[in-house]
Amino acid sequence: MNSSTAAGQERKAPGRPRSAQADETILDAVLALLGEGQSAAAVSIEAVAARAGVGKATIYRRWPNKEALLIDAVRAMKGPLPELAGRSVREDLIALVQANRTARAQRHSKVTACLMPELIRDDELSRMYRDFIEPRREVTRQVLRRGIETGELRPDLDVELTQIMLSAPGMMQSIFRFNLAIPDDEFAETLVDAVLRGAAA
Amino acid sequence: MNSSTAAGQERKAPGRPRSAQADETILDAVLALLGEGQSAAAVSIEAVAARAGVGKATIYRRWPNKEALLIDAVRAMKGPLPELAGRSVREDLIALVQANRTARAQRHSKVTACLMPELIRDDELSRMYRDFIEPRREVTRQVLRRGIETGELRPDLDVELTQIMLSAPGMMQSIFRFNLAIPDDEFAETLVDAVLRGAAA
Repeated sequence: MNSSTAAGQERKAPGRPRSAQADETILDAVLALLGEGQSAAAVSIEAVAARAGVGKATIYRRWPNKEALLIDAVRAMKGPLPELAGRSVREDLIALVQANRTARAQRHSKVTACLMPELIRDDELSRMYRDFIEPRREVTRQVLRRGIETGELRPDLDVELTQIMLSAPGMMQSIFRFNLAIPDDEFAETLVDAVLRGAAA
Repeated sequence: MNSSTAAGQERKAPGRPRSAQADETILDAVLALLGEGQSAAAVSIEAVAARAGVGKATIYRRWPNKEALLIDAVRAMKGPLPELAGRSVREDLIALVQANRTARAQRHSKVTACLMPELIRDDELSRMYRDFIEPRREVTRQVLRRGIETGELRPDLDVELTQIMLSAPGMMQSIFRFNLAIPDDEFAETLVDAVLRGAAA
């Protein structure tokens, strides 16, 4: 796992011309509508066009349908993965969990939560979300597999379950605002150490 | 922690007469509408009344507002907590995680996910959801605190973080359908052991 692979996860969908300014204006309009409490079902191409000050044709030239537009908006908000130092599994896992604690990533968690009704009901949207998020999850899996190889982690580790244990608590925390005693800037380190060391005495 | 306390978490809200049959018909109507893909915002008292075949007044006699009705529907779906044997912390934690893996609890997770946009935006609904879910979380915390006292768990354990680590992965799993190698009936035991033993070699 090196930083170029991590950066590679952030590549844009191929085959679409990227006139960056218009793209950003349109994606910002989607995020603004979702952020104001519009459900994904209520965010129409018409509403996005009006908000962005562009014609509907401008949107349809860039995105084939609303689902593709929603997922690209989520992708735009997520931001790049951190560069991983590769010195220790613990350090890399902390960097990956920490990347989900930025203000931008927290907004992303909430927008994802606002998409959840549609993610559950809409198989196409769900597939597109998975295509976007899977390469990011894979970076965590690669770090875990490296840890098994180097002997930093248990040889019998369940990589997929551990990846979920590292990502799910932060997401639920940003949605449900649990009453944690941990200061926000210590969350990543505390969670990684809890996952690594275990709760048993 | 004994079973009577667990059962006590399932008590109904005080002060409202429980004419059980009509209540259930109305709550079933709410869950049916949400389960069909209606957003919580779109589930009106009118729609519930029509679906349940009762007058709006019948609903307003029982619930002061839509939020209270939604939360009661979620509560009805959640089902009772298991009786805890109290022999070992590991065994009790497995029983608590397992209680979220029943078909009924999985439906509950999805309905909760469908409420997430409203839970994020609506402080009153969020407070009501917390009032309902907190006593359930407290049962897990009590088991964890008992484990610290008995020496089964680390003396420096972060009880709140551990409670999130035990609940968040299953919820995210039922929403995002991660590709886990673990058979569903082994999920609870595998997660509890992962949390207890830790990932480090």
